[in-house]
Amino acid sequence: ELRDALAGSFGDGALAGLRVLVSAGPTYEDIDPVRFIGNRSSGRMGFAVAEAAASAGAQVTLVAGPVSLPSPAGIARRLDVRSAAQMREAVLGAAASADIYIGAAAVGDYRPAQVASRKLKKRDGAPLVLDLAENPDILKDLAAASPHAFLVGFAAETHDVAAYAQDKLARKGLDMIAANRVGEGLGFEADDNALSLYWPGGGEELPRASKRALAARLIARVAERYRMARS
Amino acid sequence: ELRDALAGSFGDGALAGLRVLVSAGPTYEDIDPVRFIGNRSSGRMGFAVAEAAASAGAQVTLVAGPVSLPSPAGIARRLDVRSAAQMREAVLGAAASADIYIGAAAVGDYRPAQVASRKLKKRDGAPLVLDLAENPDILKDLAAASPHAFLVGFAAETHDVAAYAQDKLARKGLDMIAANRVGEGLGFEADDNALSLYWPGGGEELPRASKRALAARLIARVAERYRMARS
Repeated sequence: ELRDALAGSFGDGALAGLRVLVSAGPTYEDIDPVRFIGNRSSGRMGFAVAEAAASAGAQVTLVAGPVSLPSPAGIARRLDVRSAAQMREAVLGAAASADIYIGAAAVGDYRPAQVASRKLKKRDGAPLVLDLAENPDILKDLAAASPHAFLVGFAAETHDVAAYAQDKLARKGLDMIAANRVGEGLGFEADDNALSLYWPGGGEELPRASKRALAARLIARVAERYRMARS
Repeated sequence: ELRDALAGSFGDGALAGLRVLVSAGPTYEDIDPVRFIGNRSSGRMGFAVAEAAASAGAQVTLVAGPVSLPSPAGIARRLDVRSAAQMREAVLGAAASADIYIGAAAVGDYRPAQVASRKLKKRDGAPLVLDLAENPDILKDLAAASPHAFLVGFAAETHDVAAYAQDKLARKGLDMIAANRVGEGLGFEADDNALSLYWPGGGEELPRASKRALAARLIARVAERYRMARS
């Protein structure tokens, strides 16, 4: 057990032979050919997780939203998408062969109900509303499609982080959730982050560190929990 | 006149001694701490224009929306902003001392009527609408604040480009407008672009080329038109 923990924390083969699917980045939902609804995810946390998983020996598929980041070292495959619907399709397409899914993408909850094919023009003085529709729940669909995969979710919140994350862990039947508070130089668009990990019956605080260092610690814990769940 | 035209097209000092204010990039309008309405402008056309103006001898101030681009060579000052309101403030603040303003930014026409201080949560099944408000018209406010500046606007359209651009030229009292069709590998998020220039009583087609090459031709024409207007 000590050897396992050390192997995990140093990343030498803790995920060898496993296929890991990671989603990362924001999703952008088009309003018209030029405008969209986006979110502030930079993709850096998810890319760091993909790199840490590859460095732990996993065969990694990375599904990336619209980001301008080079592919992490050692990953097997990268699929670039834009909208939540495209991310869902790419994730579900790759899910059948995944042992572990780590959903680090900040998938937009809403999209415009209609997408205009022409650029919308200013209408002088008229009240303007944008009708929204709810996006599919990728984690939920994935859990149904791949009941045997080890599922890790992320929760990025501005308030009540712990309560929301633990609720999401239970509600979605996840094996682990990584929660962080966004804002104040942490989380989205920042180099550093701090994560609270929760799993059924336990948890771990990962204090402020670079996203790369946090990703290595997260992957070590995922490897350990995966082995426990499967043993 | 031939000498002037050649000097302009080779960029050697055609704008020497002039102060040029350039806006570039998109604007992002926050919905809540994580979500925003954005547009697809990469900022590359405006950054190329700022660089071409500096290389033509101008003292250049660049007001940039949220982009991940290094500052162009030779510019005097760069102000980074996010929203249309912030861009308006930065542009108007720098406008008093500008001889020429080139508005290459894709300023969002709309913003959410309210900005939520907490991340909005999914409300199950409830119909969702986002109320929008119209953003200020920066070019119009600038024309009022700096009646003597030479004003160059941009128009990025998916349809009826020429008609819309010429209408905007007249309606806003611009000295020149650079119009382009977005989509099909041109314009936003693309390396190449093609511009149609219009000024009162004339115009010029700049066929498909790199944004850098187009920016040099645009600046040469701006210098020529500026000298004609001021002579």
